[in-house]
Amino acid sequence: MAQKPSIPKGTRDFSPTEVAKRNYIFSTIKEVFEVYGFQPIETPSFENSSTLMGKYGEEGDRLIFKILNSGDYLKKVDENLLVSKDSLKVTSKISEKALRYDLTVPFARYVVQHQNDIVFPFKRYQMQPVWRADRPQKGRFREFYQCDADVVGSRSLWQEVEFVQLYDAVFSKLKLTGTTIKLNNRKILAGIAEIIGAKDKLIDFTVALDKLDKIGAEGVTKEMLAKGISEEAIQKVQPLFQFNGNNQDKLNQLQDLLAASEEGTQGVKDLRFVVDNIEILGLQSATLELDVTLARGLNYYTGAIYEVSAPKGVKMGSIGGGGRYDDLTGIFGLKDVSGVGISFGLDRIYLVLEELNLFNEVALPKPKVLFINFGEEEATYCMKALVKLRNNAIKSELYPENAKMKKQMNYANRREIPYVVIVGENEVKNDNYTLKNMQTGKQQLCSLKELLEIVT
Amino acid sequence: MAQKPSIPKGTRDFSPTEVAKRNYIFSTIKEVFEVYGFQPIETPSFENSSTLMGKYGEEGDRLIFKILNSGDYLKKVDENLLVSKDSLKVTSKISEKALRYDLTVPFARYVVQHQNDIVFPFKRYQMQPVWRADRPQKGRFREFYQCDADVVGSRSLWQEVEFVQLYDAVFSKLKLTGTTIKLNNRKILAGIAEIIGAKDKLIDFTVALDKLDKIGAEGVTKEMLAKGISEEAIQKVQPLFQFNGNNQDKLNQLQDLLAASEEGTQGVKDLRFVVDNIEILGLQSATLELDVTLARGLNYYTGAIYEVSAPKGVKMGSIGGGGRYDDLTGIFGLKDVSGVGISFGLDRIYLVLEELNLFNEVALPKPKVLFINFGEEEATYCMKALVKLRNNAIKSELYPENAKMKKQMNYANRREIPYVVIVGENEVKNDNYTLKNMQTGKQQLCSLKELLEIVT
Repeated sequence: MAQKPSIPKGTRDFSPTEVAKRNYIFSTIKEVFEVYGFQPIETPSFENSSTLMGKYGEEGDRLIFKILNSGDYLKKVDENLLVSKDSLKVTSKISEKALRYDLTVPFARYVVQHQNDIVFPFKRYQMQPVWRADRPQKGRFREFYQCDADVVGSRSLWQEVEFVQLYDAVFSKLKLTGTTIKLNNRKILAGIAEIIGAKDKLIDFTVALDKLDKIGAEGVTKEMLAKGISEEAIQKVQPLFQFNGNNQDKLNQLQDLLAASEEGTQGVKDLRFVVDNIEILGLQSATLELDVTLARGLNYYTGAIYEVSAPKGVKMGSIGGGGRYDDLTGIFGLKDVSGVGISFGLDRIYLVLEELNLFNEVALPKPKVLFINFGEEEATYCMKALVKLRNNAIKSELYPENAKMKKQMNYANRREIPYVVIVGENEVKNDNYTLKNMQTGKQQLCSLKELLEIVT
Repeated sequence: MAQKPSIPKGTRDFSPTEVAKRNYIFSTIKEVFEVYGFQPIETPSFENSSTLMGKYGEEGDRLIFKILNSGDYLKKVDENLLVSKDSLKVTSKISEKALRYDLTVPFARYVVQHQNDIVFPFKRYQMQPVWRADRPQKGRFREFYQCDADVVGSRSLWQEVEFVQLYDAVFSKLKLTGTTIKLNNRKILAGIAEIIGAKDKLIDFTVALDKLDKIGAEGVTKEMLAKGISEEAIQKVQPLFQFNGNNQDKLNQLQDLLAASEEGTQGVKDLRFVVDNIEILGLQSATLELDVTLARGLNYYTGAIYEVSAPKGVKMGSIGGGGRYDDLTGIFGLKDVSGVGISFGLDRIYLVLEELNLFNEVALPKPKVLFINFGEEEATYCMKALVKLRNNAIKSELYPENAKMKKQMNYANRREIPYVVIVGENEVKNDNYTLKNMQTGKQQLCSLKELLEIVT
């Protein structure tokens, strides 16, 4: 019966210390979400397959974990279909449910399903695990948490301002200073596509332009030409090759460059609103930076696009991202509901905080006081004190057995319990306690009242 | 493309209010767990099927949700096997992973897998969802949370004392007074079985005895006879038909009754340790009650057995339960590790608190202050105040659009936001704010400092 136990690849066990550190990040994000007026919802871990399939593209469909129907699920499946071994077709016959792939589609489903109970604009946050049958690699898991905040039911640009503030507030609270919040707008990208006269080449264009720092203007031009972007088009957007200065400078350059594009001009106006207001309101520790090469989720976003990078010097992909998507709920039949939202990458934030030693203030869920167990009478005496300590919310415990002193002290050491209480015959007789500070090694005799005061 | 959205049967969406109430229960349990020295761990939502299958009996195996392998999972499956339509056999070929069915087996797996990093005795708690393909009905779901605390690596009876205290502490903190913590011991049941000379009839015996209040001694005797328990055996345990008085009385009666059984006598001794010490230490609001008919998880528990009932008058099954199980980790190859643990039934506790109106103090995650939006200039002015409020952790927001006043006030009303700030041209000019208390309807003009003081 004995098996060598293991867990599926791409999944993780979390130890008490890891749980505490993760909860510290979760609760910081949650606090800020709520201060900004967002409210939590939760959706089931699995949805009807029809809710998820077809929403993430062909690749996404492939990566969705499907749940096998219960009972004698093969009974009604056509024999010829089984023999054909067409996994895709058979799946739809033997599986009706699938694990959540992200939080956005379930949220859209939630909004449509509960639209009569929801007050719009609806500001919701959601922090739950999602599952993807991706090939696991460093920093990429098959089960991981997403932390999303979205507003639906308004096109207001104030929300786009607020999400910049919110990112700044969370990272400042985590003491992760020096993050860069990159901002772009889908309309800017549409304007550039219009100017270069090649909508289908937009991604090639931004990918090449993004390498400006690394390979220089000449290298970028070469790559663009190789991708089939015409010399004439490249000529038209030359200003983007010397795109620098502060955000206002950049906005002015974009305004000139995109003057001929109505959509592009609207994009500049939208960005200006966010940039101007963030300048007026200020940020605590992050920097807002316009980045016209930012094109994440291009097929998805219709307005603002966000991405957050870790402080310079920390090698890490983006630690957050988001944007505006019009018609979020259209796939479920509710038209014209605009949404804008952002997401925090928990696992990457964890790694960054670890690297920068920013977890040092996290309270680990370990006891503060251990009572040594010298036998039944002494233990009963200790348990009375424990009731008092615990009523005062002091994390504390009695070593469960009358084991050798050394073993009990070793337990306290290995669990890094800061105080040990030693109660022998004498202490019971005199109604006091010997308290040992495990860091200094100092011992003192004290009353219960004094004990409580010291360990509080 | 439009679909009528729904969720799988037996699953639930949770609205902001529901999430807040559930989190209130979770965090109360969590706080007490930590005060008692327990530390959190988390395990993956799905395990290798081999970890779970065969651990919960045949019925359990059937109720475990299996996850379909990814990719072309049928490719290597034998054609004849497919044509046989043997769902059970095919499952093992097309599914390698399964959703967590409870928290105990994953915990046992965790302990064995990480045994070298764990300090024993290991006190862990775990609050995560589990999934069961059970037929959904009132109060029974296919996805639900379990909240477990267990200690492994010690046979100390102090732990059995502590779990009684812990139950009492949690329910007292939830203001759910009047709960009954029922206690039994597997050894008592073994003793009874020995006395009646029919080990295989033990469940029939306790089920019948449990009906004493309802059908009287005569009815119980009749049922026992019908189940094949001999008249002689029933005669021997007659004291159980007049089993009453306080816990000490009951212990004395049991001691006499089970004197001939070594195991039964040990059971009395174990129970006495718990009962005596709980009498010395006291409970806040719960009552400890010996109940020899308590036999939950009989195949599982080897020592203490717990079950908690809601206060009298509330119709509800048990709201918690647990017990001691020796050799928890044996199934994974680590022998002789004793465990004892308890579980809280979140969904039932939720229903009880709802019925008794004990949620009234739960802070809902809704904004405290809404700033009315009268246009860009006023909004910018409001946003500056919002930065201050939010830095002071006041949940607050700006209505995102310059909509009709009525619509904005309606939003505040429907979300039950207690304060509304109205800023027009005059307020901007005079650097002040009109604050409206939505409950009293009172309006007042104030400075930012005053505003902050009032809403804090």
